[in-house]
Amino acid sequence: MKKVGNQTYELESNVTIVCGVSLVGGKEGQGPLKAYFDFVEKDDKMGEKTFEKGERKMFFKTISSCIKKAGMKNQDIDLYVGGDLMNQLVSSNYTASELEIPFLGLYNACATMAESYIIGSVFLETNGMKNVVCATGSHFSTAERQYRYPLEFGNQRQSYAQWTVTGVGASVLSTTKSASVTVKRFAIGKVTDFGISDIANMGAAMAPSAMETLVAFFEDTKTTEKDYDLIATGDLGKLGSDILKDLMLKKGFDLESNYIDCGHMIYNIDQGTIQGGSGAGCSASVFNSYILKKLQLGEFRKVLLISTGALMSTTTNQQGDTIPCIAHLVEMEGKKC
Amino acid sequence: MKKVGNQTYELESNVTIVCGVSLVGGKEGQGPLKAYFDFVEKDDKMGEKTFEKGERKMFFKTISSCIKKAGMKNQDIDLYVGGDLMNQLVSSNYTASELEIPFLGLYNACATMAESYIIGSVFLETNGMKNVVCATGSHFSTAERQYRYPLEFGNQRQSYAQWTVTGVGASVLSTTKSASVTVKRFAIGKVTDFGISDIANMGAAMAPSAMETLVAFFEDTKTTEKDYDLIATGDLGKLGSDILKDLMLKKGFDLESNYIDCGHMIYNIDQGTIQGGSGAGCSASVFNSYILKKLQLGEFRKVLLISTGALMSTTTNQQGDTIPCIAHLVEMEGKKC
Repeated sequence: MKKVGNQTYELESNVTIVCGVSLVGGKEGQGPLKAYFDFVEKDDKMGEKTFEKGERKMFFKTISSCIKKAGMKNQDIDLYVGGDLMNQLVSSNYTASELEIPFLGLYNACATMAESYIIGSVFLETNGMKNVVCATGSHFSTAERQYRYPLEFGNQRQSYAQWTVTGVGASVLSTTKSASVTVKRFAIGKVTDFGISDIANMGAAMAPSAMETLVAFFEDTKTTEKDYDLIATGDLGKLGSDILKDLMLKKGFDLESNYIDCGHMIYNIDQGTIQGGSGAGCSASVFNSYILKKLQLGEFRKVLLISTGALMSTTTNQQGDTIPCIAHLVEMEGKKC
Repeated sequence: MKKVGNQTYELESNVTIVCGVSLVGGKEGQGPLKAYFDFVEKDDKMGEKTFEKGERKMFFKTISSCIKKAGMKNQDIDLYVGGDLMNQLVSSNYTASELEIPFLGLYNACATMAESYIIGSVFLETNGMKNVVCATGSHFSTAERQYRYPLEFGNQRQSYAQWTVTGVGASVLSTTKSASVTVKRFAIGKVTDFGISDIANMGAAMAPSAMETLVAFFEDTKTTEKDYDLIATGDLGKLGSDILKDLMLKKGFDLESNYIDCGHMIYNIDQGTIQGGSGAGCSASVFNSYILKKLQLGEFRKVLLISTGALMSTTTNQQGDTIPCIAHLVEMEGKKC
């Protein structure tokens, strides 16, 4: 691995994304990306008694399917790396207990998918490991009642609010199995805090973090937005991605033509999600469906995924703290068609 | 990096532990290890209004001092890797925001210190990074009121309960700065669940995990307990470490002469902590004081640190789930005297 500039690293091994699997809830399955998801689950409890137990089952189904799709068995996987939004990452912990694969738990809120690709790739880069499974996800009903209000309360939502995606995404990364999509470079984000303290206004809190990581990556690699077919942020939503576009323009980069936000594109405008999707499952499910498939088909060749995370808790919010945020960037490349 | 057996990896680069810093609260500072800690803080709010804000300040002080002790500045550190017990790792997040070092957040409960050494070492192994800071910690008052009862409630403690350590430990790992202690091998744990559901009985819940990782490491490396000067578990406490000794004996390994538990040794028997210490800060502060100093002095040469984590949350506990646990092992070596 080679350090490029200040925050960027270039992999020297051929780390492939063998395959990806995405699973979403019923609402996400009615959105514009419905044709791309592997599983749409209408029962968001997955037959369990609680949403939390249902979320766990979604993780297990997604990861198991992904390992199977890669033509592997659990014992072929050296490492399961990932996390989720539940306190103490319990969805991932219980899934790891079922899978019986060595596990490293990660938490960078909704930036965890990119974090897991970074750590998974680095373990593969050393040649000590052959196959790693990366996975994250989130669930509207478990996140909403943990971070904000009881579901039964039915509070009115702010005009700048987003909707936590019910969804899980998983990928098998490998240095031994060939595939058309590879991980090339990544940039590790710094935690930044721009003083937003309203936990419903996450797009505005996270946009400056996305800007900082993206600008650091462009400076480190001496590239611009024009060098990539697609630049995708994780879950800034409509408002947050508009802020990012403004901020980037001030830095001299124009995101008008090749930029999307996973949260902005996962729902239709008439689905009542206001600014769009959020949650660790947002970039995880959109990358492992729409983006990965288009990379595999050669429709995109060079893609930057910037997963964005708001790192607050209910305790910090109640104690009047502002929201620290982070964004990690991963560059993926498909084969030339 | 070379894979050895099923779960163990051997580093091929010379990853040194340049230095370690430990900070503890007043109670820990009255225990048998008081002479070894770098900082003993009598005010467990560190002059702040809340325990949570105090915990954050403890993290910042420990990590900043560690970077300074290594003869470095923040910009010399490529990566800050670690976590804590607070929901969403907020102590680490706010610290990362102050430090302005690229950050990857980890959570494996009280196994997070070993997890951070593993991930930090692997990033260094690729030669892309030169210096990494690893840190974890915990705080009695923040953990107790988040995981169990309000402090004001003053509940009676069970005979098998442990006491969350107020303490933080940090180390700078490097491939460019020479030091007498190096990271040699590590084993990544699997999540195991042996059916314990009482969240006060964590030693019993975690002991089988420690056993599984330790036995996997011995089998992978074809070594036994006799090949090491010290085998230290993180926070099994007196009861949990007795269970581990029994379990290991059944597997043919005798831990009677060279085994300690950081939780068992951090308090005196008359300090009212019942089975001893627990928490992510337990193995972090004891390793970065007593153990590291004895490695540096040549009193120990080969040491196995097995940090142990109980991966439950209040939600899983309230929903009747059992406690999944994990243990990660790191082998450190000091120079021959």
